Amino acid sequence: MANRYPVSALQAFTTTVLEQYAVPPADARTTATRMLDADLRGMSGHGVLRLPGYARRLRSGGYNLKPDVRIVRESPVSALVDGDNGLGQVVMTKAASIAIEKAGQSGLAWVGVRRSNHAGAGGVYAAMPLAHDMIGLYMAIGNANHMPPWGGVDMLLSTNPIAVAIPAGDEPAFVLDMATTQASYGRIKVAADRGETMPEGWMVDRRGHPLTDPNRADEGFLIPIGGYKGYGLNLVIGALAGLLNGAALGSAVIDFNRDFETPTNTGQTIVVVRPDLFQPIEEFKAAMDRHIRELKSSTPMEGHPALRVPGDQAPQRTAEMRENGVPLAEATVRRLAGLADELAITDHPFRS
Amino acid sequence: MANRYPVSALQAFTTTVLEQYAVPPADARTTATRMLDADLRGMSGHGVLRLPGYARRLRSGGYNLKPDVRIVRESPVSALVDGDNGLGQVVMTKAASIAIEKAGQSGLAWVGVRRSNHAGAGGVYAAMPLAHDMIGLYMAIGNANHMPPWGGVDMLLSTNPIAVAIPAGDEPAFVLDMATTQASYGRIKVAADRGETMPEGWMVDRRGHPLTDPNRADEGFLIPIGGYKGYGLNLVIGALAGLLNGAALGSAVIDFNRDFETPTNTGQTIVVVRPDLFQPIEEFKAAMDRHIRELKSSTPMEGHPALRVPGDQAPQRTAEMRENGVPLAEATVRRLAGLADELAITDHPFRS
Repeated sequence: MANRYPVSALQAFTTTVLEQYAVPPADARTTATRMLDADLRGMSGHGVLRLPGYARRLRSGGYNLKPDVRIVRESPVSALVDGDNGLGQVVMTKAASIAIEKAGQSGLAWVGVRRSNHAGAGGVYAAMPLAHDMIGLYMAIGNANHMPPWGGVDMLLSTNPIAVAIPAGDEPAFVLDMATTQASYGRIKVAADRGETMPEGWMVDRRGHPLTDPNRADEGFLIPIGGYKGYGLNLVIGALAGLLNGAALGSAVIDFNRDFETPTNTGQTIVVVRPDLFQPIEEFKAAMDRHIRELKSSTPMEGHPALRVPGDQAPQRTAEMRENGVPLAEATVRRLAGLADELAITDHPFRS
Repeated sequence: MANRYPVSALQAFTTTVLEQYAVPPADARTTATRMLDADLRGMSGHGVLRLPGYARRLRSGGYNLKPDVRIVRESPVSALVDGDNGLGQVVMTKAASIAIEKAGQSGLAWVGVRRSNHAGAGGVYAAMPLAHDMIGLYMAIGNANHMPPWGGVDMLLSTNPIAVAIPAGDEPAFVLDMATTQASYGRIKVAADRGETMPEGWMVDRRGHPLTDPNRADEGFLIPIGGYKGYGLNLVIGALAGLLNGAALGSAVIDFNRDFETPTNTGQTIVVVRPDLFQPIEEFKAAMDRHIRELKSSTPMEGHPALRVPGDQAPQRTAEMRENGVPLAEATVRRLAGLADELAITDHPFRS
């Protein structure tokens, strides 16, 4: 069962909670906005569901509340941003802005981030350049290792997601946001909250047998997409979003579900490209429209619903949630209400 | 059964065949070198095995033999290269050189290609920046559609490969080269040549049932890695290596296994990044070494061989082939010998 809550109420509540933990108001607002952006895109595993986890880390002193988020290395087409252990949403919002500005000047920009933290849904950052008619590409190191090297048992790798957003014309923009594992850990948390079992193929235990109970997730490990191919892709992201930025990778990645104090040194990278480096923007957007329509109007397999393209449902989903509220699972609501009680926030949307 | 043939003999033979079809000597040498590069990296599906296919296209007038490969749009960090329907290896070799040169100046370069042709193994081009201590990222549109949109039956998508090469220090460089389908069409051709059956999971027929006979490949379609995730990744490559460059995509892609005359308008993209935009190159290479060693020295599953990292066996494989020759399947040898007879080339390595 999921209840619905107005976007504005969730955003206000999230901001209030963060402020109660002494996050400066502007940073609290930025973080809350990015979290709701995730919910509104249907990426609920990275939305307000994450607030209790962030709160626990804030309580434990795991974040720098007054970070000096700054560029430590720079060229006209690149920047290395040191997040100074600030909230990931704050750090990545700044990094994305820098990348968009640089791409505005030179057409292309690559901005790496180190000493950041969990920033939520990658699709949210990849999509930020869309408003400027630019392509966004985001890669990140996950904040806990849930996967061994292909064929191994030592958990040295995270879900390392990649997100790509490409502008279209009349069609909704293309937005892909995927972990390089068959399932993201966020989706597993959602499954646990909903009391659902996981399909086979998401996780295996240490002997390679399927694991389907999301509450036993810490007994097994995630499976990369396409086996050794997803393993390879995961390593690419590790190198480009982690090592290249001087961020944590492999055994240096702490498990932020267990350790709430040690700085995570999270690495993230955003690449922004202006399509008009290659052709007039309106021509490109029209070509994207034609391509998307060709895919969506092609023939489905017998019994299969209409075909989709990543991102195609985001605008209508967002509009629907703005109208009817954001659906939250009961377990999520219970935890958010508990957080309100703990902080003595009396004016909150989760009173029963 | 595979026989072994010296690298120099295969390279000379390939060059001779191309010259017989009126390819200018320098272009013939470049193409032969790139084809042998693929064999030497163990990517035999894109090596000399492809020569009969290229020959057929040359015979049919499908290539422009005197292409004016030129930059049609340019910035300090980007170029759009028009391949003028030249041999793909010639076009992509030039595009990679342009990207390396631009990245040498500005640290970062994105070069797109249109009106190119099948260029062989993506890993070969991604690896070219390695000699300059740079990272290479290659994406391409495959030359025949073998996959429908996820859940569909109209074959509008190709194997769209991605290749990434990242320099290391003492360890072999990281080189990933993968189709976004579970199997590449090249591997299926190798399986057919070797008389092997395909494992389940490579292809399905139009009703979704597994297809394991590589000789029946044209009755079914390829499966994307990770299901809808690989479908999404495939679309990203389609947009960035195809549409953005004004190259063919979707229903505009011709099947180069059936049509030997129509220009393919193949799209390819190479991105080159200098790691020293973000940290001193020696530090980065040392970090890659430590990471690769940590992965490879971690514990394998019971009964599993030692763990691997993409590219780790390339140098020893190359050295071994330079010493003992390149292994070619009998069916490949038979076709190459037939090609020699057809062209009345008497001095060739395949006499029985």
